[in-house]
Amino acid sequence: MSDSSSKPRHAIAPTRAEDYPEWYQQVIRAADLAELSPVRGCMVIKPWGYAIWERMQAILDGKFKAMGHKNAYFPLFIPLRYFQKEAEHISGFAKECAVVTHSRLEAGEQGQLQPASPLEEPLIVRPTSETIIGEMFAQWIHSYRDLPLKINQWANIVRWEMRTRLFLRTSEFLWQEGHTAHRTAAEAQEETARMLEVYRQFAEEDMAMPVICGEKSPRERFPGAVQTFCIEAMMQDRKALQAGTSHFLGQNFARSSHIAFTDESGQTKLAWTTSWGVSTRLIGALIMAHSDDDGLVLPPQLAPTQVIILPVIHSDASRAPILEYAERLQQDLQQKHFRSSPLRVEVDKRELRGGEKNWEWIKKGVPLRVEVGARDRSNEELTFYRRDRETKARQSLKREIFIPKAAEELEEIQDQLLRRAQIFRDQHLLKIDSRETFYEFFAPQNREKPEIHGGFACTHWNGSSALEEQLQRDLGVTLRCIPLGESGEEEKGICPFSGEPSPRRVIFAKAY
Amino acid sequence: MSDSSSKPRHAIAPTRAEDYPEWYQQVIRAADLAELSPVRGCMVIKPWGYAIWERMQAILDGKFKAMGHKNAYFPLFIPLRYFQKEAEHISGFAKECAVVTHSRLEAGEQGQLQPASPLEEPLIVRPTSETIIGEMFAQWIHSYRDLPLKINQWANIVRWEMRTRLFLRTSEFLWQEGHTAHRTAAEAQEETARMLEVYRQFAEEDMAMPVICGEKSPRERFPGAVQTFCIEAMMQDRKALQAGTSHFLGQNFARSSHIAFTDESGQTKLAWTTSWGVSTRLIGALIMAHSDDDGLVLPPQLAPTQVIILPVIHSDASRAPILEYAERLQQDLQQKHFRSSPLRVEVDKRELRGGEKNWEWIKKGVPLRVEVGARDRSNEELTFYRRDRETKARQSLKREIFIPKAAEELEEIQDQLLRRAQIFRDQHLLKIDSRETFYEFFAPQNREKPEIHGGFACTHWNGSSALEEQLQRDLGVTLRCIPLGESGEEEKGICPFSGEPSPRRVIFAKAY
Repeated sequence: MSDSSSKPRHAIAPTRAEDYPEWYQQVIRAADLAELSPVRGCMVIKPWGYAIWERMQAILDGKFKAMGHKNAYFPLFIPLRYFQKEAEHISGFAKECAVVTHSRLEAGEQGQLQPASPLEEPLIVRPTSETIIGEMFAQWIHSYRDLPLKINQWANIVRWEMRTRLFLRTSEFLWQEGHTAHRTAAEAQEETARMLEVYRQFAEEDMAMPVICGEKSPRERFPGAVQTFCIEAMMQDRKALQAGTSHFLGQNFARSSHIAFTDESGQTKLAWTTSWGVSTRLIGALIMAHSDDDGLVLPPQLAPTQVIILPVIHSDASRAPILEYAERLQQDLQQKHFRSSPLRVEVDKRELRGGEKNWEWIKKGVPLRVEVGARDRSNEELTFYRRDRETKARQSLKREIFIPKAAEELEEIQDQLLRRAQIFRDQHLLKIDSRETFYEFFAPQNREKPEIHGGFACTHWNGSSALEEQLQRDLGVTLRCIPLGESGEEEKGICPFSGEPSPRRVIFAKAY
Repeated sequence: MSDSSSKPRHAIAPTRAEDYPEWYQQVIRAADLAELSPVRGCMVIKPWGYAIWERMQAILDGKFKAMGHKNAYFPLFIPLRYFQKEAEHISGFAKECAVVTHSRLEAGEQGQLQPASPLEEPLIVRPTSETIIGEMFAQWIHSYRDLPLKINQWANIVRWEMRTRLFLRTSEFLWQEGHTAHRTAAEAQEETARMLEVYRQFAEEDMAMPVICGEKSPRERFPGAVQTFCIEAMMQDRKALQAGTSHFLGQNFARSSHIAFTDESGQTKLAWTTSWGVSTRLIGALIMAHSDDDGLVLPPQLAPTQVIILPVIHSDASRAPILEYAERLQQDLQQKHFRSSPLRVEVDKRELRGGEKNWEWIKKGVPLRVEVGARDRSNEELTFYRRDRETKARQSLKREIFIPKAAEELEEIQDQLLRRAQIFRDQHLLKIDSRETFYEFFAPQNREKPEIHGGFACTHWNGSSALEEQLQRDLGVTLRCIPLGESGEEEKGICPFSGEPSPRRVIFAKAY
């Protein structure tokens, strides 16, 4: 921590340019978002990080419910035999799962506790819930009148990870998983597309993070899905991050779980299902999309606190009147609305030096910081700082001018973050039509030449999984998605790697 | 399902009087709240049940946050060695826990999947989180300035259960667990008491369920606690249900996890901690406190839908105008407030027979049912039914009279449910001063004599755990709590079992 008079060049060391992965860890630490726990691979989400997740949950949950999805809760454990039903599915998750084998502890010979009462059938801690939810859907669905069935679950998920990274890759994480069943393929496909659009809107409007909507190649598909769609965002190191997925499962899980219904003519048919999810990974995306070398930068929509009021107190005598002035300001601001919710405003009353407090909130990414001191109070004024601008860029205003203007400032910050991220993404999304340029774009030796190195390569592709594998081996890049609709390039062309025809361009990138 | 013209005597078979435990299961089934899953001991919480839990969460979460608690999230898994640190604690949970021993599956000789990659140290799926949270608190707390630390977690919990009962006893359940650390014993004790009071208020004001606040005897204490406080409610079979607990943990967990701080004088001291929690068990309590032989009865505060509008359509021509009339009514009612939240109003537009729909909502416990048919529409009227009254007791009103009156009706229902439960509880809470009366009160052979059988026995007790054990063996009763303050009886007396002096009366009962 440091006073503003002795402000370091940057609050986060190293900077993004110096060491991006380490910068990411330090932003998390400085904002006190999360930390690794002593339990291998599992994180502790600390209050400021969890409050961001609660904001995400509240917005998404409202969107899901408005579309007719209902929340429910399914078991944490999945019997091994269910897991075995869908062959692709199991092979996709078997390598990384927590297996419960005992239901008791007992003292061993040296008095040390050890597992006892072995289970007849091992249980898997859910890595995703298609199989167990499919099993229940099969019991609940009888007739076409029971369809569509649209369920969502907020839950914890375990996928064993050896190399963990806070929010991005941990053995346990939190998510939501939607699961729906429909009468026809078309209806299920429509649901898949609609939920992808919900995720796109959330990413762009709430996270201020532009995304490309697309379909995954067969090689990158969710195990057991017929089609997987995704939203892909670009981080500030120009790597891609998959921020949400929506799967059209066809009748694969309906077949393995026997989800069948009687249609209007009395015929028995298999249902068509979908699943879709986003996780606490979004917090990692949020951090990497907007934060700077002074720490976290939060879009106002997701900031647990949108306005922090910092009383500047230089004498004991001025304490009470300044605090009273700060609290009155808080109350007045709380009457105002940002996107139809009352402003979230806090007063930091702790007895710390002003610079220390100020830096703490900079590093936590609060969109608006407002200082009120003795002179502000006598003049009915205040000084405010926007997190999207230079740290020292401040503006003084009469309080009665600021109060009705605060929500507008927040809206500007929200827009500004989106615009910046969009410009950055567009700068680093290149149409590439030769193998040589592609290899140069991703070559490790070019890492120091930002003008040519890395980003999203929008290139033609012959549809071959072997080619994807080759490119991953050579350059560490994967096919992120085959863009949909407008964001895609519908022109036909030639695959620069094989010389074969290609129906459209796809996006390759290094990815989280 | 049956039409109201062929209404059965009761919608739930068996009735409470006929077979209370089976009635409980049937109420859950008829209201579609939850069901046992194919995963041994684990339940699926279905949308209507989960929506009740979401109401509970929203209210409690608001109360916790208003008191300065912050939500966070801690790992699902607890390393065996942490679990071993607090001796009483481990012995309390070792008999019933899920143990993760492997982190991978691989195909065996017959191609069947089997656990692989054994873990160096087994992990326990959390049965409660004192140990892992204590470990983190020890890292976070350094100085007295870091205290109090007030954290809450919403999470799933696993305690292996062989005899399961929906909501009341399942291997996995959902809960909240608050964990706080303080500078002094007094401050921690104050927190323990304050959270018990939050639970009491929630039970009485929101669940409409009267409770007795008290302390647990040493025999019934939370493993590792210095003092355990609880709220105890009486179900309609006169058994007790522990609806929430608040523990003063003294320095026990601080000692085993090394939660220490430097005080103002520079001395290192151990912190004082508390924990407190309520779970999805509350849904079981809610069901058993209010439901009747026609199904679930929900207090308006916790009803996901407070008013259901049932259009009564007898001809295709009248469909559109009646639906329009119903939707206009819904919109007008949604402008009104019950306890400062907009009314939750739905229109049931499904094409089912009126009686069938009506009974479905009776069984789901919705507080107000409103029927609108062709004549209601022409007269700008409606007919409504209250779930706390006779099924057929209806009232017709002009819509412009009903709309401003709806919230008042809901308030009356909320009050009425609390009053009824209070009268019932008071009728079955008896001061008992002789061993003979006590044994008669709980004797199985007196089960058919409701005027003398069962309930809460408010009796003197010599403080002996052996006596508690004896009474549990003989009669299946346990000491539910030593009542606090006003609800307790502060008079001294004589223990009717031992003839020894007793400082105050305690509550014995059979319990869930």
